[in-house]
Amino acid sequence: MDQKLKLWFTEHQTEDYGITFRVNHVYESEQTEFQRLEMVETDEFGTMLLLDGMVMTTDKDEFVYHEMVAHVPLFTHPNPKHVLVVGGGDGGVIREIMKHPSVEKAVLVDIDGKVIEYSKKYLPNIAGELDNPRVEVIVGDGFMHIAESENEYDVIMVDSTEPVGPAANLFTKGFYAGISRALKADGIFVAQTDNPWFTPELIQTVQRDVKEIFPITKLYTANVPTYPSGMWTFTIGSKQYDPEAVASERFHDIETKYYTPKLHNAAFVLPKFVEDLTK
Amino acid sequence: MDQKLKLWFTEHQTEDYGITFRVNHVYESEQTEFQRLEMVETDEFGTMLLLDGMVMTTDKDEFVYHEMVAHVPLFTHPNPKHVLVVGGGDGGVIREIMKHPSVEKAVLVDIDGKVIEYSKKYLPNIAGELDNPRVEVIVGDGFMHIAESENEYDVIMVDSTEPVGPAANLFTKGFYAGISRALKADGIFVAQTDNPWFTPELIQTVQRDVKEIFPITKLYTANVPTYPSGMWTFTIGSKQYDPEAVASERFHDIETKYYTPKLHNAAFVLPKFVEDLTK
Repeated sequence: MDQKLKLWFTEHQTEDYGITFRVNHVYESEQTEFQRLEMVETDEFGTMLLLDGMVMTTDKDEFVYHEMVAHVPLFTHPNPKHVLVVGGGDGGVIREIMKHPSVEKAVLVDIDGKVIEYSKKYLPNIAGELDNPRVEVIVGDGFMHIAESENEYDVIMVDSTEPVGPAANLFTKGFYAGISRALKADGIFVAQTDNPWFTPELIQTVQRDVKEIFPITKLYTANVPTYPSGMWTFTIGSKQYDPEAVASERFHDIETKYYTPKLHNAAFVLPKFVEDLTK
Repeated sequence: MDQKLKLWFTEHQTEDYGITFRVNHVYESEQTEFQRLEMVETDEFGTMLLLDGMVMTTDKDEFVYHEMVAHVPLFTHPNPKHVLVVGGGDGGVIREIMKHPSVEKAVLVDIDGKVIEYSKKYLPNIAGELDNPRVEVIVGDGFMHIAESENEYDVIMVDSTEPVGPAANLFTKGFYAGISRALKADGIFVAQTDNPWFTPELIQTVQRDVKEIFPITKLYTANVPTYPSGMWTFTIGSKQYDPEAVASERFHDIETKYYTPKLHNAAFVLPKFVEDLTK
């Protein structure tokens, strides 16, 4: 009998509820300068990156989050050339950005170099474009980088962890004001803003704060199975272009597994209880 | 120290992945004539009904499934008078059907009387309309009821458990053919058809089978946090009316927490990998 020991990891997504999955192998498990980092092999989701015990990305479902962060703002902007990613050290958002030929330069600023290092090593399908010559990778503080940038970016994407730990100041009104200054006059930004089932107050607060700074503020959703509730939200702040009114000729062909031009629009149609959070 | 013992229940949604939640109290736990039935109190989701160890419905998120099963076909049909629910003993779909004044009679056929009994006792907010005079509740075999019905119903809703155990024959081509005969000439039916992440083959099989019988076959989705992956699918078979082309004047005001007329249409816009399952 060579029955492998079955080991399970549970992420308690709230105090009283969680997701649990079998872990085959632990590649890395360490305390970096900023957070707890685990890279593990699971039976159901393939290789998985955990930060502070929370699932960040997995081989199986990563495409949803990365495509939906990148393509919604990039197809909304008519000619995105300079793009900034705050966080996102796994490289998944960068990979999607590189599908847009208009982008001349994408800057990624992640505070934790270990996330970048281990993603390149264990998640090559996700991190593969980090070495693209159109990409500049900076290990540093995204909040500071934003504060030092002015009139520089067409699109800014905030691919952060939850508003605890190193990402806490990425969910503040001061940060959104900084983003506005860092953007060009017709710029647009997107941030992941958790889920409406267990963190409705967060969505309401972000909506209220972003509305004070950006004339166009919208919320859209996508289904990420490994995130709490399976329904993830993204908040867009835009100075000029309405992400719900993208001219059809603006879409060009890209290869995706989740995003489609029709879904671009449908993602903004919210269930009633979610729509109520945006009012 | 009066620290209550923390007890957790885990549903293994696949062999290698699951959902776990704290259980405060077990109201009922028994083997009925047809299946394992548990009614429990949870911290995160309120009262919860489990069948064969799988979450069927919870106080917190039940509205999504029940609204989306009922209102999509009922607003697609111009004048639904006679409606049949197969399964659905918790009464949630019936509650939503009763919001449509055109419905003169709704028949519910659930094979397990215990589900109905305990839902009335422990889930009154869900089961409350089972005593509505417009509702006829039959404890019996839905497959047989369908087989004995002809040209009788405007809308049929299949609110079943998974295609194992008592619901196995509700996922067969013979069943869909029976539904077609039980429906009037312009009838429409909907069935829950699991999720695209872990049971893609089921969706493909149902789509193929229903297409052979119904001229209009469509798939739509909704987010149910307590179901595997959080993305649930529903398959519609319709003889005449296209659920994606409902005239706006057909919608009348009803109180909902998830469904809206705009969401009615958006729910049919599928992520690319799900759309591919319908081809």
